Amino acid sequence: MNRIIERKITFDEKANGVCETLFHNANGYIGVRNCLEEGAPDTWDTMRGTYINGFYDVIPMKQAEALCGLVEEKETMLNIVDIQTIMLNVDGVPFDMEKGTVLKNTRILDMDAGTTTRVTRLRMTDGKETEITVKRMASFGQLNLFLMEYSVCACNYSGDIEITSCHIADVRNYTNPNDPRLAAESLKNLSVQETLEDKEQSFITCKTQNSGLSVCTAVAHELSQEAESELVKSGEGSYEYVLSKTLEQGEVFTVTKYCIFADSIRNTGVLRTARNDLDTVVNNGKDYYYEAQKRYLETFWNHSEVVICGDDAVHLAMSYNLYQLLQSSGKDGRCNVAAKGLSGEGYEGHYFWDTEMFILPFFTLTNPQVAKALLSYRYDILPAARENAKILGHKKGALFPWRTINGKECSGYFPSGTAQYHINGDIAYAVISYYLTTGDLDFIRKKGFEILLETSRVWMDLGNYCKKGFVLNDVTGPDEYTCMVNNNYYTNCSAKYGLHWTTKIYRILKENGGVEEINARLSVGDDELQTMEKAADAMFLPYDETLGINPQDDSFLEKPIWDLAGTPKEHFPLLLHYHPLTLYRYQVCKQADTILAYFLFEKEQSRDVMQRSYEYYEKITTHDSSLSTCVFSIVASRLGMQKKGIDYLGDSTKLDLENTHENTKDGIHTANMGGCYMAVVNGFAGLRVTQEGLSLHPFLPEKWESYSFRICFHDRLLKILVEKEQVTLVLVDGEQISINVYGQNVLLTKEQKRQ
Amino acid sequence: MNRIIERKITFDEKANGVCETLFHNANGYIGVRNCLEEGAPDTWDTMRGTYINGFYDVIPMKQAEALCGLVEEKETMLNIVDIQTIMLNVDGVPFDMEKGTVLKNTRILDMDAGTTTRVTRLRMTDGKETEITVKRMASFGQLNLFLMEYSVCACNYSGDIEITSCHIADVRNYTNPNDPRLAAESLKNLSVQETLEDKEQSFITCKTQNSGLSVCTAVAHELSQEAESELVKSGEGSYEYVLSKTLEQGEVFTVTKYCIFADSIRNTGVLRTARNDLDTVVNNGKDYYYEAQKRYLETFWNHSEVVICGDDAVHLAMSYNLYQLLQSSGKDGRCNVAAKGLSGEGYEGHYFWDTEMFILPFFTLTNPQVAKALLSYRYDILPAARENAKILGHKKGALFPWRTINGKECSGYFPSGTAQYHINGDIAYAVISYYLTTGDLDFIRKKGFEILLETSRVWMDLGNYCKKGFVLNDVTGPDEYTCMVNNNYYTNCSAKYGLHWTTKIYRILKENGGVEEINARLSVGDDELQTMEKAADAMFLPYDETLGINPQDDSFLEKPIWDLAGTPKEHFPLLLHYHPLTLYRYQVCKQADTILAYFLFEKEQSRDVMQRSYEYYEKITTHDSSLSTCVFSIVASRLGMQKKGIDYLGDSTKLDLENTHENTKDGIHTANMGGCYMAVVNGFAGLRVTQEGLSLHPFLPEKWESYSFRICFHDRLLKILVEKEQVTLVLVDGEQISINVYGQNVLLTKEQKRQ
Repeated sequence: MNRIIERKITFDEKANGVCETLFHNANGYIGVRNCLEEGAPDTWDTMRGTYINGFYDVIPMKQAEALCGLVEEKETMLNIVDIQTIMLNVDGVPFDMEKGTVLKNTRILDMDAGTTTRVTRLRMTDGKETEITVKRMASFGQLNLFLMEYSVCACNYSGDIEITSCHIADVRNYTNPNDPRLAAESLKNLSVQETLEDKEQSFITCKTQNSGLSVCTAVAHELSQEAESELVKSGEGSYEYVLSKTLEQGEVFTVTKYCIFADSIRNTGVLRTARNDLDTVVNNGKDYYYEAQKRYLETFWNHSEVVICGDDAVHLAMSYNLYQLLQSSGKDGRCNVAAKGLSGEGYEGHYFWDTEMFILPFFTLTNPQVAKALLSYRYDILPAARENAKILGHKKGALFPWRTINGKECSGYFPSGTAQYHINGDIAYAVISYYLTTGDLDFIRKKGFEILLETSRVWMDLGNYCKKGFVLNDVTGPDEYTCMVNNNYYTNCSAKYGLHWTTKIYRILKENGGVEEINARLSVGDDELQTMEKAADAMFLPYDETLGINPQDDSFLEKPIWDLAGTPKEHFPLLLHYHPLTLYRYQVCKQADTILAYFLFEKEQSRDVMQRSYEYYEKITTHDSSLSTCVFSIVASRLGMQKKGIDYLGDSTKLDLENTHENTKDGIHTANMGGCYMAVVNGFAGLRVTQEGLSLHPFLPEKWESYSFRICFHDRLLKILVEKEQVTLVLVDGEQISINVYGQNVLLTKEQKRQ
Repeated sequence: MNRIIERKITFDEKANGVCETLFHNANGYIGVRNCLEEGAPDTWDTMRGTYINGFYDVIPMKQAEALCGLVEEKETMLNIVDIQTIMLNVDGVPFDMEKGTVLKNTRILDMDAGTTTRVTRLRMTDGKETEITVKRMASFGQLNLFLMEYSVCACNYSGDIEITSCHIADVRNYTNPNDPRLAAESLKNLSVQETLEDKEQSFITCKTQNSGLSVCTAVAHELSQEAESELVKSGEGSYEYVLSKTLEQGEVFTVTKYCIFADSIRNTGVLRTARNDLDTVVNNGKDYYYEAQKRYLETFWNHSEVVICGDDAVHLAMSYNLYQLLQSSGKDGRCNVAAKGLSGEGYEGHYFWDTEMFILPFFTLTNPQVAKALLSYRYDILPAARENAKILGHKKGALFPWRTINGKECSGYFPSGTAQYHINGDIAYAVISYYLTTGDLDFIRKKGFEILLETSRVWMDLGNYCKKGFVLNDVTGPDEYTCMVNNNYYTNCSAKYGLHWTTKIYRILKENGGVEEINARLSVGDDELQTMEKAADAMFLPYDETLGINPQDDSFLEKPIWDLAGTPKEHFPLLLHYHPLTLYRYQVCKQADTILAYFLFEKEQSRDVMQRSYEYYEKITTHDSSLSTCVFSIVASRLGMQKKGIDYLGDSTKLDLENTHENTKDGIHTANMGGCYMAVVNGFAGLRVTQEGLSLHPFLPEKWESYSFRICFHDRLLKILVEKEQVTLVLVDGEQISINVYGQNVLLTKEQKRQ
């Protein structure tokens, strides 16, 4: 199936911003936006960014009123040294799309090759036609390698060209003071510490202002033909590598730029590491890495492809989304997945619950090693989460930060930040899912149980018994249009699940060994776990007798319903047009909240209650968050409303490709991408992983001919193919296994199973 | 009775800070802290302040997350030009308390003369003893006049003295980054626009950076004996008036400093006004103003004295408090009463509900003209309050700002700021009280009804019907340790009262004329008022059947009780040691909330419910706010718990005089001062003013011999004397009137009435 996206890019500001994001190259470690090599016109809003996952500085975040415990500084992902700038002169005239006629301007993303390509053909004012072709790759084989292949063709003339390839340390972060989702103040938090040039290779070591981190970037070039060349210093800690060459008509000249990144989070001696790695990659040569890239992606697709027949656009969009998840996710256990991946500065590179609830499910099912690395990151920030719990007044336990890079809470407005305690439940849920899908008890023993225990300890300290049962007060659920409420249905379900599983896992560990070490290390024992079990059993879940639905929280149904029909279109998303206190007073939801609980904790309610609630919340949800429609789709599918399931997925797969939220320029929406995957796999195919094992309940959307996907389950590789008349399960690899399909157990052996 | 406070001031940093506040001179228009004329030692924390009520600049107040509608700038009271600095040299040696032996250092506040006096006698290192006496006055007769009389006595020597009297424009506001109740960043928002010297008089006109205001200060001197004098410019827009004189042993030399203030809020042409007024006051001479001051205060005490026999300290403290209320309150309708009056920069000179709930009751009962001026200020900021209501999403009405100077909302953290909608009810309550006490229907017609209507309109838009009745969701009551709750008992009572009275007053206006004009001007009519009446009748007031008490809000009783006994002493006030979200989750109150409702809206509940609630809230209230114990005292008295009533008043009267909250250096606690008055008048004497008239239910605290107070009621001046065996009511002035005493109506004529 086709996994190549080719697109004409009109030469305008808006298209350029979207293109920078859509065609960015990343590998979970580095990310480089697909900016015009020669630079965008001065007046354009452009985000010229290069990022390292987890590389940040700490900046002040003053509170308007400095109440006790409020966060007063935050981590922010830094835009680091610019290595993508390459300028071209033809007979002294700059290659400038503003000053010529653009004959062609395309971008190609090849998701099998793992590269992007720009082709721009320009008729310059003097009539000369020049075509540049730029291939870019963020290597999956060598995570700190970014490769550019810049080719110039003198199409209809012979002449002198001059190529200036830059390595620039004078960079800033992007700012937009009018959008709370972006940084408001210009940041220049990177300063040059050391520069070095050697054999026309340049090295720049920069350090951050406050976080004590440093990063070295190294650049080397390789030429297709001989040319005059010179490496010159330009400005503070920047280099220009200048090439001069006479081209015959039709001749193509190519310069390959090897860019190596070495940061002090992962390396001691960043300059030494950069020099060594640059030597290695130059010696190996680009083809070595192109090949490695292909092999890596072959394995990736073999484990995770989703093939949709009958709707090529959706198929391609789905592939794009999965590819972006791969590009975005940290794989080294030292970092996570930012809300915008490594594609832009929206949400400042912070990690949210998006990872565990929307992105991890894909990796847990297809690439458990990545899932494990992401969960290990959470394990590593437990000390900071314990500190956070203390700040919030908890005597024990860990409260994960609502948004963070290195573990510290970075949310400035706690009512819709830190108060979202459900992140504790989300992370616990992900640990349990990982365990249920992989059976990796070793991870549970070493890291997973500690996460479960520490998050459960906060539930115990947060909650209290009253006549309703065990209650959780003053928390914020996923829906940020109602904050600081009592007994948010989702949060209480999530806490209940986490508490139950903490005790279950403890019993499993008892049976399988290792519990003595855990008892000693974590000062835990049967008594504490019994209190957890008791609280889980007594957990209050709000239910309204009159409507027969679950209220989102204790008082939700006492508020008036927001007049969505009477709200002007231009007032959406509501958060940009209404004071939070106004929103809090109405029944109006930014996103799936109780509905998400129905997907994750479907056994808590009868089908009828879920059905009635679904219809209720559907009418009052704006889907102002991109994490919403996919959940409505999954639960619609669960409730047998296939058409709704399909409609809610709708164009979500194309959210970024078609820029439907109008902010793709700030970065991709990774959670939505994961959500689209879930809408197909958990929604249409009805896949669930529980203690009882793997189950499926597939249906085929009307307009599709078929769809298939591959997953890993307890060391097996399975393929599920859903066609009009039949569902085919294939055990691609591994030992036989029993799967529940439409409620029937089916033993899957190496022979093909049909149902 | 004695109304003179004389106090030795030890020469140390802490005592100095408290002294600066306690002995400040103010008249509701200007306020000057009682700083050492010669300046405090460099290392001391000193707040060298001069303020004009309502004179402010606008400064940025960045939000950590810029959500829609959040306040991003605030008004802050500016420290203006320093006129109190006077330095002394004796034979070339500076008069410096650090470098000599302090033989005497006292401050005297004479509350009949309306002046403060400093006497400092210093033995300098060369053995010379010099005594300075500084008398200061902020004139009540001429509000923009501040007078200083600086006398030097050469006690045991003859020698040359040099006096330098300063007029300094280079000033900043005080800052303390560690206390949220003070400004965190140093402000220099005043710049010199124009200076002028004329006949040894100096004039400095300054303008603010952002608010567009300007102020001219004018200074003239008068000498007791001839001396050499020179006016010199010193630094940017500052003047020094230098006097040289040889003193014989025992000789006293006095320089009188006339300081005039003219601001652009009240004057067009501030320099011209300042020149004219300076001429006038110099011509009239100081004695003219001393006399006027005495007469003014004679009238004041005649209308408002509270005389306590049997406890001189409490008597003096009570007098001090009433005097401070007079000093603090704006009287020109253009300003109000800052939380710290004009005595310091705590809370940045902002006006809160403190005015209406704690300070106005005193003026309404004793000096209705001041009450009217303060309420007129609220009327004048209605346009800003309407704007604020719009920001909060209300279609109609006005929402008064939680804290402000010129009408704009200045609270940076809305959950315990703007969300305190009860301020609307508080202001409405004060309007109604003013009407009930004075019968001033003219004010109601012109201003009062509009306040009632506009605040009621917000209640209607804020609230909604649900099965409980008419409910008010997501508001914060007076107790800031629980924020954004549903159906705060106090708020709902307050809204109910406001709605009821809006309709009552409307009927009264109908009967008394003027309603047609109001209908047209405010687009109001019977229909709208009927909906208000209906909502008031349906207003939900939370009540717990099991405990038989009123919960502070819908979910208050479902939270665990804070372990006050187990909280370390140094963790109070809790707000400085616990994250707000921690506090919100517990039953713990910063201050009287439901209990305040019992005082103001005592007819809503039976005595039994109030009694049980009282006992309940008593156990969980920290009184971290200075607005709390006085309310507990009043309600204890109401419930017949006389001992508790007395105990809760306790040392509250001395809060500032004895610096019991350890922050008097930042300014006086005006609301507490008003609260102490109420504890006696409304508490011990049981005074109430309702539609039925004036009623009393007095008791005498055991340790007192008697107490008396004077009030104005419907143009009568009354004196109430409570002694062991009897209560004496005197109609000092005005026509006969019926008063209810202990439930019996008593007709009070010019003859003395006994009961």
